[in-house]
Amino acid sequence: MARIDAATAEDLISTAAELAEAARNATLLHFRTDALAADSKETHRFDPVTVADRLSEERMRAILARRRPQDGILGEEFGAVQGTSGLTWVLDPIDGTRGYLSGTPTWGVLISVRDAEGVVYGLIDQPYIRERFEGGLGRALVTGPSGERVLRCRGPRALSDAILFSTFPEVGTPAEGAAFRNVAARARLVRYGMDCYGYALVAAGQIDLVIEAGLQAYDVQAPIAVIEAAGGIVTDWQGGPCLEGGRVLAAANAEIHAEALRWLNG
Amino acid sequence: MARIDAATAEDLISTAAELAEAARNATLLHFRTDALAADSKETHRFDPVTVADRLSEERMRAILARRRPQDGILGEEFGAVQGTSGLTWVLDPIDGTRGYLSGTPTWGVLISVRDAEGVVYGLIDQPYIRERFEGGLGRALVTGPSGERVLRCRGPRALSDAILFSTFPEVGTPAEGAAFRNVAARARLVRYGMDCYGYALVAAGQIDLVIEAGLQAYDVQAPIAVIEAAGGIVTDWQGGPCLEGGRVLAAANAEIHAEALRWLNG
Repeated sequence: MARIDAATAEDLISTAAELAEAARNATLLHFRTDALAADSKETHRFDPVTVADRLSEERMRAILARRRPQDGILGEEFGAVQGTSGLTWVLDPIDGTRGYLSGTPTWGVLISVRDAEGVVYGLIDQPYIRERFEGGLGRALVTGPSGERVLRCRGPRALSDAILFSTFPEVGTPAEGAAFRNVAARARLVRYGMDCYGYALVAAGQIDLVIEAGLQAYDVQAPIAVIEAAGGIVTDWQGGPCLEGGRVLAAANAEIHAEALRWLNG
Repeated sequence: MARIDAATAEDLISTAAELAEAARNATLLHFRTDALAADSKETHRFDPVTVADRLSEERMRAILARRRPQDGILGEEFGAVQGTSGLTWVLDPIDGTRGYLSGTPTWGVLISVRDAEGVVYGLIDQPYIRERFEGGLGRALVTGPSGERVLRCRGPRALSDAILFSTFPEVGTPAEGAAFRNVAARARLVRYGMDCYGYALVAAGQIDLVIEAGLQAYDVQAPIAVIEAAGGIVTDWQGGPCLEGGRVLAAANAEIHAEALRWLNG
């Protein structure tokens, strides 16, 4: 990780913290209020975009324009900005907009920074709980209502003793769903509905696997940073990189990753 | 609600608050630690009972023995104690033990008081978030990280605009699952995995429906108190009382309740 110097690392971490604070305030302004105006990006699928989603990303972009104008930006709501530094911020102002609309405490703000090699730092923030999971640039920690704790993924155990999460029971296309169920049928426990919080729970050493499909780059890069910093592994369903999203297998360790990969493809 | 005098009401509310604080401390003592020892009540189904579950109920029972020795107790872990007052405390020290083991912030402590006519007061506490939803004896409020707010269920809307929650996509037996899916197929959005937090979201005006099967008395009585205090309706799948658990339909208002009931039975 010598590719980022110490002064830059410090600035990236403190910029990310400022972004997360701004996004936390923006999203909480509209969370669990009756004034939520949701429209839909796609007419054939329920995918609300709220006022809060846009406000949150606008505020983050304003901070980056001031603090890190040399960096690029890839955001869910307002597209890509090219930079000159080789670093790009990847922003998902509300991951889990359906959870947000429903009032659950499982959606989150995803913020990460990448260079040409991959993600260097990322965070998953849950504004309502006031909880933040960070990974990269020497950090692997959660700060929240119970204080601060180091993040460390669980040790190896058999899939038959493992806990598997996915946000929706359907998990992508019918073929992707069948592959998921081939793993799920062998897990000790399968739970749904956690949005990005599932990835945080892998990093926190609570669960073993998250398997999802149809993700975007901004859905997965912050989770990759947090889970890898905690000792876990995040790949696509072939074991290759998944920085651009798509099919994602997040695992607490190499052993459970290998076992899940086998059943995803058999 | 003249069946409880003001002094008794005040004592019940303050006793419940003391129980909830004790349960919050007991459950957080073991939440997200590596030392969780889970055993199983039934060998054929995954249903962990943790050290925290038992500790939480023991501490609540000790408080009741001191403060309200005249009342009965029905608890998940240690069975029934007969009382002489006509009032019975119904305790679920950890509703959603699988969520608890997984580290999610969706499990809760359920505390309620009933008399011969029904539930008079109940609360749903989420210890990690430090959030408590209360209903009955003139109260309908949530206190949590964003302060205090009155609970009020959502107004009527069509099922096609409604949000439906259930903890598991299977929802009970195959026949129960089919009835659930008959409603779910017509809802705007269906989400899983929230344990008792789904009922809190009905009371908070965030979602329209929770439909579940196979519940116990201690799973449902606190949610009934909280949702009814917020203006909602909780019945079985025939529209009758569900104080003893079983199949539960929790609805934000009479209109969405009627529409869901129709599809559950057709």
